[in-house]
Amino acid sequence: MRQAVQLARRGAGWVKTNPLVGAVLVYRGQIIATGYHARFGGPHAERRAVQSALQRYPKRIVQHATLYVTLEPCTHDGKTPACTPWLIAQGIKEVIIGSRDPNPLEHGRSVRWLRRAGLQVTSGVAQTDCDYLIRCYQKWITTKMPFVLGKVGMSIDGKISAPKHQRYISNPAALYRVHQLRQEFDSLIVGVNTIVHDNPRLTTRLSLHRLSHPIKIILDSYLRTPLSSQAIDEHTVMVCRETASRQRKTAFIKKGADILELPVDPTGGRLLTGYMDMQRLLQELGRRNITSVIIEGGANVFTTFINNQAIDEFYIFMAPAIYGATRLPFTYALDQVVQLTSVQVEQLDDNILVRGYAHYSSYSIS
Amino acid sequence: MRQAVQLARRGAGWVKTNPLVGAVLVYRGQIIATGYHARFGGPHAERRAVQSALQRYPKRIVQHATLYVTLEPCTHDGKTPACTPWLIAQGIKEVIIGSRDPNPLEHGRSVRWLRRAGLQVTSGVAQTDCDYLIRCYQKWITTKMPFVLGKVGMSIDGKISAPKHQRYISNPAALYRVHQLRQEFDSLIVGVNTIVHDNPRLTTRLSLHRLSHPIKIILDSYLRTPLSSQAIDEHTVMVCRETASRQRKTAFIKKGADILELPVDPTGGRLLTGYMDMQRLLQELGRRNITSVIIEGGANVFTTFINNQAIDEFYIFMAPAIYGATRLPFTYALDQVVQLTSVQVEQLDDNILVRGYAHYSSYSIS
Repeated sequence: MRQAVQLARRGAGWVKTNPLVGAVLVYRGQIIATGYHARFGGPHAERRAVQSALQRYPKRIVQHATLYVTLEPCTHDGKTPACTPWLIAQGIKEVIIGSRDPNPLEHGRSVRWLRRAGLQVTSGVAQTDCDYLIRCYQKWITTKMPFVLGKVGMSIDGKISAPKHQRYISNPAALYRVHQLRQEFDSLIVGVNTIVHDNPRLTTRLSLHRLSHPIKIILDSYLRTPLSSQAIDEHTVMVCRETASRQRKTAFIKKGADILELPVDPTGGRLLTGYMDMQRLLQELGRRNITSVIIEGGANVFTTFINNQAIDEFYIFMAPAIYGATRLPFTYALDQVVQLTSVQVEQLDDNILVRGYAHYSSYSIS
Repeated sequence: MRQAVQLARRGAGWVKTNPLVGAVLVYRGQIIATGYHARFGGPHAERRAVQSALQRYPKRIVQHATLYVTLEPCTHDGKTPACTPWLIAQGIKEVIIGSRDPNPLEHGRSVRWLRRAGLQVTSGVAQTDCDYLIRCYQKWITTKMPFVLGKVGMSIDGKISAPKHQRYISNPAALYRVHQLRQEFDSLIVGVNTIVHDNPRLTTRLSLHRLSHPIKIILDSYLRTPLSSQAIDEHTVMVCRETASRQRKTAFIKKGADILELPVDPTGGRLLTGYMDMQRLLQELGRRNITSVIIEGGANVFTTFINNQAIDEFYIFMAPAIYGATRLPFTYALDQVVQLTSVQVEQLDDNILVRGYAHYSSYSIS
């Protein structure tokens, strides 16, 4: 199953609103075929594994192999015909499943169908890893809002602006992981200040032959972003107030960017980012089939999203340096303590990655 | 050698100005005896190991065993007779050494003596671990100032004051490590604000049968510390300005505390802690045979010591929580970036310990 999880990741960036899925076929302790869902509309992982085995082994061997698949097979014809009846028709006898389908309409359906057809089915194997693989799909399919990951690159004392002599806070190993996230996620959000100060490209830079670039979403209530910014192109969405200058809107549209207008939230103060409604933004992104988004900062954006309890998971990259109070902090004042759960720590050379799910406590901070 | 390092740690808190040392005697791949330096004035590790072997094995076997010792043996008679000639007299044939003696007068002296006497000597084995064991001794013996460890207990965004509903920021596993440090180190330093706000005991709380409590050093220019504070007793040193109230000084002396008066540093602003001279404080502590000190905060004290480039190593305990800008930061404005080197990361349940040596860069921060 661990190998199936690894395989599933190869689809990162290409499955759109589908989940990442990997499959492995094992006969007498030997892997005889593998498959993963490689692109939206393409064949599913379990089908690819079984088909690949059938090309190389007698049908009898394939039928007596055990199919490991990270996600419960589908039961409906979609872009491709349903996998569940197809597996039964192929005469597969045993299926080991990681996660059940998070779609409430599908949850457990395939497991029951396979069992009724006489197959031996085990589910919940390596479930933590398999669930992690589909966390974005799960959020989107159940809430129609994207999964939100807060990516913070900071010093060990929580500062996100580098000292003058330094270009990046994070080291190359950490930056590599950031680009892996951008490959995997549909979109990213930054505030206008980040564009103005750093003029980043916000693209995926990895030595892969299939690069997937995230949609760049820039929060900019008054459209202050310079038109010459590197990030502005046809994969950019400018999020602004309805009342922002029509002339500026037209100028961005001419550069190929999309404009997403938000009403000003009447509740006011908590929403630092130009008082725009972040829940509304996430609903709008979900409606556009964006299943996942990385929040890349800066402090205004992090504070707004945290105070809206809108970040699902944090990836905090820490450089082993102390900058002190003159550098920009990761957040401003928060309404509530954020606790991280299921914390994982990785050492990336001399940088540290701490990741965990965000849990918003009901205690006020002071 | 790894086992010798473990053994050496058992002496933590009891060897005073001596280094921690462990020794293991190995005969044909089997450990036949072990020893460590258990208390100031007591026998040295290598002597204890060899003597213990001689009580149980024929002399011939002991002589043909290999002696592993974390630190180069001594060459001078001190509280105990010198180990080097004694080992030669016992007929030991092979010695494996971790660190050479950091005392410039002794460095390499025993290695040369043993070799001249015909013993086979290897040094520098597991040297990183062995050097780490004697880092306090090394600093004190070469500079006559204590080794300074900055212990920070903070949220992941660098805040050291807990939200109201919480007593401790760190979890029990992290607190256990703090008490291990207190067992190992001669003294600790806190600022008056920590005493006033938290009224801590500052003792070592471990389930050991030999507890060693650090000397409590309280930085308090005007002696504002309440006399009823839990930390005030005969193991406390109050550090104040020469000009502090004579009446207050007398009151603390009556409680058993010691008074250490410092002149006000004329250079002024950088030294937040009542403008007292921290280099002078460290020299004074070294003169009192204090080889090691833990800086336990708060923000004033950390900032002062960092801006004086006076912290040698950091232990940063992080709780997986984000508190935001309303809580007290770990430091105020710093003159320079602190880089941590030889970074080690440990996960302590859901807390994270990051430790490393402090390197003060020559770049200014902004």
